[in-house]
Amino acid sequence: MDFGSETLSLLVRAFSRLPGLGAKSAQRIALYLLRNDISEAHALSHLIHVLHEKVRFCRTCGAITEDDECAICKDPGRSRELICVVEQPHDVFVVEKTRQFKGLYHVLHGVLSPIDGVGPENLNLRSLEDRVRAGGIQELVVATNPTIEGDTTALYIAKSLASHGCTVTRLARGLPMGATLEFADDNTIARALERREKL
Amino acid sequence: MDFGSETLSLLVRAFSRLPGLGAKSAQRIALYLLRNDISEAHALSHLIHVLHEKVRFCRTCGAITEDDECAICKDPGRSRELICVVEQPHDVFVVEKTRQFKGLYHVLHGVLSPIDGVGPENLNLRSLEDRVRAGGIQELVVATNPTIEGDTTALYIAKSLASHGCTVTRLARGLPMGATLEFADDNTIARALERREKL
Repeated sequence: MDFGSETLSLLVRAFSRLPGLGAKSAQRIALYLLRNDISEAHALSHLIHVLHEKVRFCRTCGAITEDDECAICKDPGRSRELICVVEQPHDVFVVEKTRQFKGLYHVLHGVLSPIDGVGPENLNLRSLEDRVRAGGIQELVVATNPTIEGDTTALYIAKSLASHGCTVTRLARGLPMGATLEFADDNTIARALERREKL
Repeated sequence: MDFGSETLSLLVRAFSRLPGLGAKSAQRIALYLLRNDISEAHALSHLIHVLHEKVRFCRTCGAITEDDECAICKDPGRSRELICVVEQPHDVFVVEKTRQFKGLYHVLHGVLSPIDGVGPENLNLRSLEDRVRAGGIQELVVATNPTIEGDTTALYIAKSLASHGCTVTRLARGLPMGATLEFADDNTIARALERREKL
């Protein structure tokens, strides 16, 4: 659509390329920025501009940080014997939110996916091996997603690091809390049945 | 939530203030920009930065333009006898999309709303009066929204410009195309019944 301004048209198009935004919501956001104070647009523009510059990945675990090492790796209160391995940086926040995990993290920045040309060398796996090899790690909790790629990656990690004497575990699979059998998918029910727990 | 980077946290917060975006979608967009090429983030940042600078409002009708006057006002092919009065700049695109209107526009940049402290002096009404007073306008099609504020504004325009000899009309109200009686609201059905049209 022609918005009477090339800048506005380009901005609407740029917004509509972002995940979860369609043409209508992109238009709504662009017009909102135009209607509101220029300072709000400038603040947003600045944050987007410096994003790549400011945000770095922790040299130890690969999580998001603005320093060399992330706050979790630097925290002396966290257990150094336990490492939770996740696919993406935001998975760290997701696990942190549960307040159940007191160990460290390792972010793979992807999963093994031969179909997309992603092999072990494309993931942050070498430094995981280094951490395990350095010793002192009792358990790797692999928290990759319960997908074929996530499972393959977990299996790869278990096999390649088995010789270093640390246990490799995987998040439990089953019915999600609050779910109803009626709406759970067949695979989840089958898995929950197979791994039924004694009361 | 703590994202390990203040910039990222601020960006997520800034995105979540935009209309239609919640915390989750804001996070998703920020991480998408971080994951993707820096050039995409810089391009988006630039467009947002120059938005207020580039986009202006047409000195004649108040529509969005990057020049002094908008393309519609400058178009010699448009009828100068007919003016469609709308609330917001984007309403111009909405009416234009129908390809049914061949006249000019006038954007009020709001509606009369005493409760929000918006009076006639806060709207782009003075220049509408000037345009009508200058003569040559046969009809003002008031296309404000079918709300109390939109109706009040339409009535105000009709009353204040009645003495200048141009007809003031309002968009028809009734059942929207493709609607079913079952799901239409009472007010719409009552109005459609009252204004029933002869076949």
